[in-house]
Amino acid sequence: MLSKMCLGVLGLLLAGAAVAEPLTIESQGSFFIGGREVKSDTLSTLPAYAPSGTITVEQMYVHYQIPAGPKKPPLTLIHGCCLTGKTWETTPDGRMGWDEYFVRQGFPTYVVDQVSRGRSAADPSIINSVKLGKTAVDKTPPVFSAGHEAAWAIFRFGPEYPKVYPGMQFPLEAVDEFWKQMVLDWAATLTTPNPTVPALSALAIKLKGTVLLSHSQSGIYPFQTAALSNEGIAGIISLEPGGCPAPDGDLKPYLKIPTVVVFADYVDLSTRWAPRLKLCREFAAAVQKAGGKTELMLLPEMGIKGNSHMLMQDRNSLDIAALLVGWINKNVAAP
Amino acid sequence: MLSKMCLGVLGLLLAGAAVAEPLTIESQGSFFIGGREVKSDTLSTLPAYAPSGTITVEQMYVHYQIPAGPKKPPLTLIHGCCLTGKTWETTPDGRMGWDEYFVRQGFPTYVVDQVSRGRSAADPSIINSVKLGKTAVDKTPPVFSAGHEAAWAIFRFGPEYPKVYPGMQFPLEAVDEFWKQMVLDWAATLTTPNPTVPALSALAIKLKGTVLLSHSQSGIYPFQTAALSNEGIAGIISLEPGGCPAPDGDLKPYLKIPTVVVFADYVDLSTRWAPRLKLCREFAAAVQKAGGKTELMLLPEMGIKGNSHMLMQDRNSLDIAALLVGWINKNVAAP
Repeated sequence: MLSKMCLGVLGLLLAGAAVAEPLTIESQGSFFIGGREVKSDTLSTLPAYAPSGTITVEQMYVHYQIPAGPKKPPLTLIHGCCLTGKTWETTPDGRMGWDEYFVRQGFPTYVVDQVSRGRSAADPSIINSVKLGKTAVDKTPPVFSAGHEAAWAIFRFGPEYPKVYPGMQFPLEAVDEFWKQMVLDWAATLTTPNPTVPALSALAIKLKGTVLLSHSQSGIYPFQTAALSNEGIAGIISLEPGGCPAPDGDLKPYLKIPTVVVFADYVDLSTRWAPRLKLCREFAAAVQKAGGKTELMLLPEMGIKGNSHMLMQDRNSLDIAALLVGWINKNVAAP
Repeated sequence: MLSKMCLGVLGLLLAGAAVAEPLTIESQGSFFIGGREVKSDTLSTLPAYAPSGTITVEQMYVHYQIPAGPKKPPLTLIHGCCLTGKTWETTPDGRMGWDEYFVRQGFPTYVVDQVSRGRSAADPSIINSVKLGKTAVDKTPPVFSAGHEAAWAIFRFGPEYPKVYPGMQFPLEAVDEFWKQMVLDWAATLTTPNPTVPALSALAIKLKGTVLLSHSQSGIYPFQTAALSNEGIAGIISLEPGGCPAPDGDLKPYLKIPTVVVFADYVDLSTRWAPRLKLCREFAAAVQKAGGKTELMLLPEMGIKGNSHMLMQDRNSLDIAALLVGWINKNVAAP
């Protein structure tokens, strides 16, 4: 038998483990979902690399961490326009990102780079074909980057660059570090729905149940994924989606999946965002009327003020993540 | 005093911690190094995004994990051509990558995406300027992807696609998963040295000492970094570099840094790689003659056979990583 003092020491060790800073990971790693082969004669215009050959594109990069201990439902974090999975990591001012926060809360957490973005390969064929005079100049793929000035208003740091909304929670003293997160976006060169959507469906099926947590450009993706198949979708959290499904469309794909659509502050002040909230409000009402469980979470109405479009990086980002953990605990069955 | 049995239980717990699968991380996260602002009128050709504005480019994405417990010198892992930091993560056939292996061996480990690759932003301005007829077509940036067929020989899976060298250690049954790691490469559109080089220098200085571990296209980067400044470079491991510094050039930057250049198998069978090994052999001899500590590690001469250019993903990848840990323990001072 263990002595009383020994049990005390063990208890101290275990309590220490629970509150200590270090994080224990059961497993981690990365893989790709999807992808298709493309044959091209314009892969390169450089002598060192052959112009003709096969490449693989439209695969989706997935990085994951699975915490030690009891498990909550897996989460899949899907970033928005002109960004990558970096969105969910360390904030621009150096605080913990949602990727790690959720792992610390017991969620196996999967962070993706959208197809043709970040570590998910894009296709240079048409660009090189234009360079070689084989394709008309106006067929050059419409790649784009969002400039700081335009992004400022889109992300609702203020009404226009460089004005700031009063009470702003985004750490604007570190905005230069945020701009470094923004990358060239190939989304407009891809099919609709974005090939990220079937990849998310395949991931959800592989995980046998995941909450799809999307943002902005990708806000609609979980709904498009549900329209392909409900299989593996344990819940949907859509943060400030660029769009919701049409309220007068086929609502059947959305009736059985616990869903919350989240909007932050200053929405009514934005001609870009106010109509999107309106549409999502109508969509949620239509789903509820049809017997489904889609709800809206409007942060200012809950007394949480000052949040930008980049709420996962705002100063109170972990408070919002904690709210979502509460919503998941209440609405999504444990695995 | 603790009872004998209690000490036994504690010992068992500690021994369990040392061999158990879970990994305890003291801290982890990501950040960018470097970056400069570019003003452009051709950021976008899409109505939804303004053409004019400022973007930030040439920053280098860095993801890190710091293990709990005693620390070895920080490692910085730098991937090669047409690849990203994914290179060091889970192998195509699902085994542990070097990123995690080194953390488990006590090394704070930093994995970068080269400038303009992966999560490090590229600049669409000239592509859009061509699309809009403002820039001549032949000025289209020479972006490229390596096709599977050409990469097969470059990575020395065999003499030519799809022939396989006898005794091949690369997990070719999972080669389709490997192809998904390959991305569009902007390196030829950038200055020389690649802007990744000053970013590596800034990272080394920030870390107050790191071993720069590079591969292939980036093989030369640690040497170029040392030529900028030796500050913060605790050691150099260059895996199958695309080039070594000229043996008859200024060797002073390389004399004080413990350095090892590693080549794998089948090099003499490759007209691409044999001259590179020859150059590195001459460089190492010149540094040694001048009193420096650059050495060659030729795996086949050590009895380690069958390794491809992607040795960090070969079946015996962790054996090679263990060799490098031995080299670091012997040659690089603890922090």
